[in-house]
Amino acid sequence: MVRRERWRQDFSGWFSDILQEADIMDTRYPVKGLYVWRPYGMKLRNLVFSLLRRLHEDSGHEEVLFPLLIPETLFQKEAEHIRGFGGQVYWVTHGGHQKLDVRLALRPTSETSMYPMFALWIRTHADLPIKVYQVVNVFRYETKMTKPLIRLREVTTFKEAHTAHATAEEAEAQVREAIEIYRRFYEELGVPYVISKRPPWDTFAGAVYSIAFDTVTPDGKALQIGTIHNLGQNFAKVYGLKYEGVDGKHHHVYQTCYGISERAVAATIMAHGDDGGLCLPPHVAPIQVVVIPIPFKEKETPVERVAAEVKEELTAAGIRAHLDDRDLRPGNKFYHWERRGVPLRLEIGPKDVEKEQVTAVRRDTGEKITVARSSLQTQVEEILQQIAEHLRGRAKKMLEESVRVAADLKSAKELLKKQGGIVRVPWCGRESCGKQLAEKVEAEMLGEEIDNRPAQDARCPICDHPATGNALLAKTY
Amino acid sequence: MVRRERWRQDFSGWFSDILQEADIMDTRYPVKGLYVWRPYGMKLRNLVFSLLRRLHEDSGHEEVLFPLLIPETLFQKEAEHIRGFGGQVYWVTHGGHQKLDVRLALRPTSETSMYPMFALWIRTHADLPIKVYQVVNVFRYETKMTKPLIRLREVTTFKEAHTAHATAEEAEAQVREAIEIYRRFYEELGVPYVISKRPPWDTFAGAVYSIAFDTVTPDGKALQIGTIHNLGQNFAKVYGLKYEGVDGKHHHVYQTCYGISERAVAATIMAHGDDGGLCLPPHVAPIQVVVIPIPFKEKETPVERVAAEVKEELTAAGIRAHLDDRDLRPGNKFYHWERRGVPLRLEIGPKDVEKEQVTAVRRDTGEKITVARSSLQTQVEEILQQIAEHLRGRAKKMLEESVRVAADLKSAKELLKKQGGIVRVPWCGRESCGKQLAEKVEAEMLGEEIDNRPAQDARCPICDHPATGNALLAKTY
Repeated sequence: MVRRERWRQDFSGWFSDILQEADIMDTRYPVKGLYVWRPYGMKLRNLVFSLLRRLHEDSGHEEVLFPLLIPETLFQKEAEHIRGFGGQVYWVTHGGHQKLDVRLALRPTSETSMYPMFALWIRTHADLPIKVYQVVNVFRYETKMTKPLIRLREVTTFKEAHTAHATAEEAEAQVREAIEIYRRFYEELGVPYVISKRPPWDTFAGAVYSIAFDTVTPDGKALQIGTIHNLGQNFAKVYGLKYEGVDGKHHHVYQTCYGISERAVAATIMAHGDDGGLCLPPHVAPIQVVVIPIPFKEKETPVERVAAEVKEELTAAGIRAHLDDRDLRPGNKFYHWERRGVPLRLEIGPKDVEKEQVTAVRRDTGEKITVARSSLQTQVEEILQQIAEHLRGRAKKMLEESVRVAADLKSAKELLKKQGGIVRVPWCGRESCGKQLAEKVEAEMLGEEIDNRPAQDARCPICDHPATGNALLAKTY
Repeated sequence: MVRRERWRQDFSGWFSDILQEADIMDTRYPVKGLYVWRPYGMKLRNLVFSLLRRLHEDSGHEEVLFPLLIPETLFQKEAEHIRGFGGQVYWVTHGGHQKLDVRLALRPTSETSMYPMFALWIRTHADLPIKVYQVVNVFRYETKMTKPLIRLREVTTFKEAHTAHATAEEAEAQVREAIEIYRRFYEELGVPYVISKRPPWDTFAGAVYSIAFDTVTPDGKALQIGTIHNLGQNFAKVYGLKYEGVDGKHHHVYQTCYGISERAVAATIMAHGDDGGLCLPPHVAPIQVVVIPIPFKEKETPVERVAAEVKEELTAAGIRAHLDDRDLRPGNKFYHWERRGVPLRLEIGPKDVEKEQVTAVRRDTGEKITVARSSLQTQVEEILQQIAEHLRGRAKKMLEESVRVAADLKSAKELLKKQGGIVRVPWCGRESCGKQLAEKVEAEMLGEEIDNRPAQDARCPICDHPATGNALLAKTY
């Protein structure tokens, strides 16, 4: 029933088509790397980010909003940061017909706009911790090939959280909290992931270390879908973020930041799709249940009225239900909502009315289930729950199968070439060995895996020293 | 009890202080006209714009999101539009270290990014109407004095709606719908307004005519808080927005657009404030009820526990309640929440616990009300309702009193000079007379009033022809 051939074999084409056909994005905006969110896509985006906001609010993060424009003077204070982002920044040089005295950067990320203000907010230990987040547009002058939702010049939707703490231990604990938040976020979306500590040469510009979440795309590449950075005191020293401690002395704060972009929406779409189109997890589906009346020739059958009642009953129960009463053939309607990934379809024909039942059809499996009107709400909720679990389980299994262990580096290279996915290799943790590993398997080093440790006797295949962790290697987006 | 002296006599100082003290904005960002939304202000902003979103969704508008960057080539197609905005546009000229081939404008408004895409979306009459909106940041290179929430270089929060219709009549009807939406929005915020048709010389660049909502600030100036434009076929002709009608022929569409910015938050703050600080309408107050335990010396009294219970009870009833159990003196807490405009304070002391009651104190009037625990929820809801009505009524009365009729133009000028507000003058509707009216009273012409007609025998004070409407004149922000 559910084919995933094109989804896997021509993933790029599948993805590009489905964004347009399912009313997610219009990719015809006449500037490279900029796209238009269409209404249905916008609803999906809002549901995904509502979930992420809630997870932040529930853990004591407060929403703020900082300006887009950062003066060059401020932006260039943190030398490493500017080295990391300098080549990718859009610059505003003119206002009206006037040349500006100081060029303004379109934020590529907000450390350099936020932290000078944090310096004004922090006086004593009582002002700490600071835990804030914002959901904003950020800009990167990408020279690589751009791709909607994935590689953008305007990232339209970037949730960035920034924190400041009195001690290094609290900053460490904050990194752990951020990992937990991201785990829960992707669990709820049913998007599988691996977590790794990025290698030193791929650490965020200005950070002490970076942790990243990656998923695997249907065509076998790793896609970064979230990052968490321990900034130590680097920015604090540059921007003068100090607090008066209980000891009466002034100390620099410790900071973290972590972000997730609209790639979360891309990951949700790609994790669960199939050749029929989208297949959305009920939790974030703009329409969870579509109700379709199937009228028979005799127009007296009250299918329309019953369908409307069913829709009302579900809506009243807090389910996002939609009645499709357009003057179209049922088959066209089925196709329309399948493309858009509505998790559950309820068909109501004369026989259903007569027997006081509805026919439920699952988008994920195609399975038909007869549901009694008397237990409609409970059963629909149960089925939606089952769909969520099935999608999560299926996606998780696929990712697990795509993380492989190779006998040696040569076969690791072959594996990545032929099957894609991720290979797991024991690693001594040294930078030089890490770089050689990546070179030898002709892939990128994602980093040292967080959730898995190598066997006790495992050794680094480069230097033969004992392995201190697993390196994850993959072709990346 | 409630003094409004500084609020009126030093409105600018009051406004600037309260934004900082009530945690609404930080105005110290080091670029002119750019400000930082602080957490409490952000919550207020989100509640205000949730209301506005809901009004749009309920009337069939769908949310979309278009890019910030508009290529100069596209932006300059509509000649009048570029004349209207050209001097105010920020230009991106460089990406990384490269000069861009085509300069990119930061949208000052989105007609020129949206309508070329509308041209792709519209094929036949079945694609109409289009009714979409987005909530985005827009940019104006203001050379005048900037002011937080009011005159910005980055308008952080601009709700702009855009529509396309098959006929001129439908576009007219859409203008009326937009007026109704804005009326309901400002009614719910308790912000009073006058509505007028802007004079020809103050029409939106590219529009056939513009309707505007204005309120009056505590220092007697008119402040524009919403605009609605009938664009006719002007943009449709430039960007090629055509549909195939039932007649099989191709016709240009008719369009409207309408916008409200974060000035709606400014208007809410200024309409209801007093010398004690903010006074927020319950509908959008981030905290509607603050519960403050008043412990007595004997620590055995269970005021803390009862206060927590009261908070829980209100939260369960859907009321945004907050328990302030910080280790501070009650007086400090009262002051803190008064500044922030929390509509209702509940004090719980040993006597209250004993008598199974709470003491409610209204922010707007200072009135103390004893509320029985047994009827807590109902009474709190009633009092919040009364506060909303009192605020709305008081603000409305103030605005009505500030719209005056003058015996002649000389006294109109005197009135505006001494008392501010708005004067209402009969007008023949001709542009030359309108300009002379404004000149003679040394004020701006807001436009022809929508909700009021002149007396049948009223005449234009310039040309003595019969008046066709009332001109509204005021000093403006």
